[in-house]
Amino acid sequence: MASRHWLCELLAEVGLEPSIDGIGNVFGRGPATGPRLLAGSHLETQNHAGWLDGALGVVAAVALVRAGLPVDVCAYADEEGHYGNMIGSRSLIGDFSEQQIDLARNKNDDTSLRDALASAGLAGRPRLTPDLSRYKAAIEMHIEQGTQLESGNLRVGVITGIVAIQHWRMTFEGQQDHTGGTTMRERRDAGLSAVRFLSQVDDAFPRICGDRSVWTTGRIVLEPNATAIIPGRAEIDFSFRDLSPEVMDRLQACLRRLVQESNRRERCTATMQLMSELQPTLCDPAVLDAFSSAARELCPDHWQAMPSGAIHDSNVLGRRLPVGMLFVPSINGISHHWTEDTKEEDLVLGMQVFARGAEEFLARN
Amino acid sequence: MASRHWLCELLAEVGLEPSIDGIGNVFGRGPATGPRLLAGSHLETQNHAGWLDGALGVVAAVALVRAGLPVDVCAYADEEGHYGNMIGSRSLIGDFSEQQIDLARNKNDDTSLRDALASAGLAGRPRLTPDLSRYKAAIEMHIEQGTQLESGNLRVGVITGIVAIQHWRMTFEGQQDHTGGTTMRERRDAGLSAVRFLSQVDDAFPRICGDRSVWTTGRIVLEPNATAIIPGRAEIDFSFRDLSPEVMDRLQACLRRLVQESNRRERCTATMQLMSELQPTLCDPAVLDAFSSAARELCPDHWQAMPSGAIHDSNVLGRRLPVGMLFVPSINGISHHWTEDTKEEDLVLGMQVFARGAEEFLARN
Repeated sequence: MASRHWLCELLAEVGLEPSIDGIGNVFGRGPATGPRLLAGSHLETQNHAGWLDGALGVVAAVALVRAGLPVDVCAYADEEGHYGNMIGSRSLIGDFSEQQIDLARNKNDDTSLRDALASAGLAGRPRLTPDLSRYKAAIEMHIEQGTQLESGNLRVGVITGIVAIQHWRMTFEGQQDHTGGTTMRERRDAGLSAVRFLSQVDDAFPRICGDRSVWTTGRIVLEPNATAIIPGRAEIDFSFRDLSPEVMDRLQACLRRLVQESNRRERCTATMQLMSELQPTLCDPAVLDAFSSAARELCPDHWQAMPSGAIHDSNVLGRRLPVGMLFVPSINGISHHWTEDTKEEDLVLGMQVFARGAEEFLARN
Repeated sequence: MASRHWLCELLAEVGLEPSIDGIGNVFGRGPATGPRLLAGSHLETQNHAGWLDGALGVVAAVALVRAGLPVDVCAYADEEGHYGNMIGSRSLIGDFSEQQIDLARNKNDDTSLRDALASAGLAGRPRLTPDLSRYKAAIEMHIEQGTQLESGNLRVGVITGIVAIQHWRMTFEGQQDHTGGTTMRERRDAGLSAVRFLSQVDDAFPRICGDRSVWTTGRIVLEPNATAIIPGRAEIDFSFRDLSPEVMDRLQACLRRLVQESNRRERCTATMQLMSELQPTLCDPAVLDAFSSAARELCPDHWQAMPSGAIHDSNVLGRRLPVGMLFVPSINGISHHWTEDTKEEDLVLGMQVFARGAEEFLARN
């Protein structure tokens, strides 16, 4: 809340009308004349995390205003999902109901969102749902939180879109048994079936993936997970990401075939369940063009167009507005940690590209 | 303790001198004339488990005495390892010190063994270490706790030995990262290296194993084991068993080569650590012969010689005495569960083979 009040002062200083709404969004509204941009990001990050994740995009938005561009600024509450999934930006576009607020609880300490908002002095405040037709686009500057720019000796990333994500849970049902008393022929080892399945994925996915597809087994749970017991059940949490719906469909079809193949070959029963699915958010071609030409001009050979593998408030805003994003490098890819940092010259250059791109976009559109 | 006192009464009834010693072993000593056998097993099983695991071998030993054979009976305390590893039989052969008793604690509720013995009224009692030269052999009847006999339509298993076990922990160190922001090329996915390693084991072990080797990955732990995070560390608990030291050596050498190969191919560092090793216990050829000829006579075509994949008190006794074991089938292989059972006719037949074998062994040796 201290940072929110600090931001309100800053917004007022640059000539915007500041407010904090009923879900904790901080909004700075400018005079309503002519075409405008909505710019911003989030102020909160993970607990004990660094100084740039989110906050960079908020101060970059303020800098656009300071540079004289027609921009409204928003710091979207709780992008990191302490109380839910992007609840600040969803509230701003009218996609988070009072009932959803009633149900939301802090994932760490189980505080209800209502109580947290009341403790913050926000009980009863109206939530802002600005007229979005006021904006030509919503733009967001962000740190990369990865090493693609750094490892390519690049200083700016112009985001083509935010990838689609599918998260599947594969379950293998076998027979729990004593490792000593059960011959190999008799076993129905669910852990072994899971390993064989994952090995097949490791073999098949590189043959059909897109250039920038990623796939990950983040979680494996064997039951009972004890040295001397053959696992009777194995659960795998597997996710994959790509910007292209065609590639996503191809990877999903492959996953289904490998589950079928597992059921054909193995003595354990494999099932798959879609746990969550996020559609891709394509950045607006005109914003992409404007950022690209700014980058081409200000740092030729040191920028690239790239998808964002991580999710941002722009995903939510993209449901209602043309969106665009710009990345600056993260030193060693570190984020969500207090050592998170970006070289000062990259911050400056990124800001220049962001401003020049915004200016060009407004001039052309 | 109620079952111990009940057993003491039974031992007295059949003419043995009963006692409960300072670690909870129940011993029935017969008159000291001529060659004798030590027979027995354990009375305690796992919590909430069945009626035959261990107890069958104790009452079978009493039955030998009742049939007039020169047998001393012992119910070895805590075979299941609530307080340690075979502490009853180890105490009996003089391989469990007072200091080890001081240190032992219940693995479930952390009660100290000293306190538990005191609560049971056994504080200060001497521990029995009988003169083992009194015995020609130690024999044990036990349920199979598996399905090899049942699935082969067999009724008796004559045990050739108790397998060796090696338990290894393989650790893969990679780099924890966000699944969205890290390209496949950049990743050091410890979980993936572990899966590839296990797939190699699955491929290699069947080519070099023995007829009855078994190998199992019972435990896999990824860190942090979360859907959206590339595992930075993976730990595998892998064990294998065989009766033959040559086969065990071959499997171990293969495991070492696969770890080397993983370090050559993968971006994660693999290390292996021996967590525990148990040498095989070969049954005494003369006991094996006697049980085999009894089985051949009483149930021709319905018995087999087989190794025990599970560990028993006979492992410990085998360090000091010739040992022999006999298995009867377990219905559906179920053990350590209250539904554990064996057909009555198989119990009767097993008892007959056990007695005839003991008699023949004593007659010949």
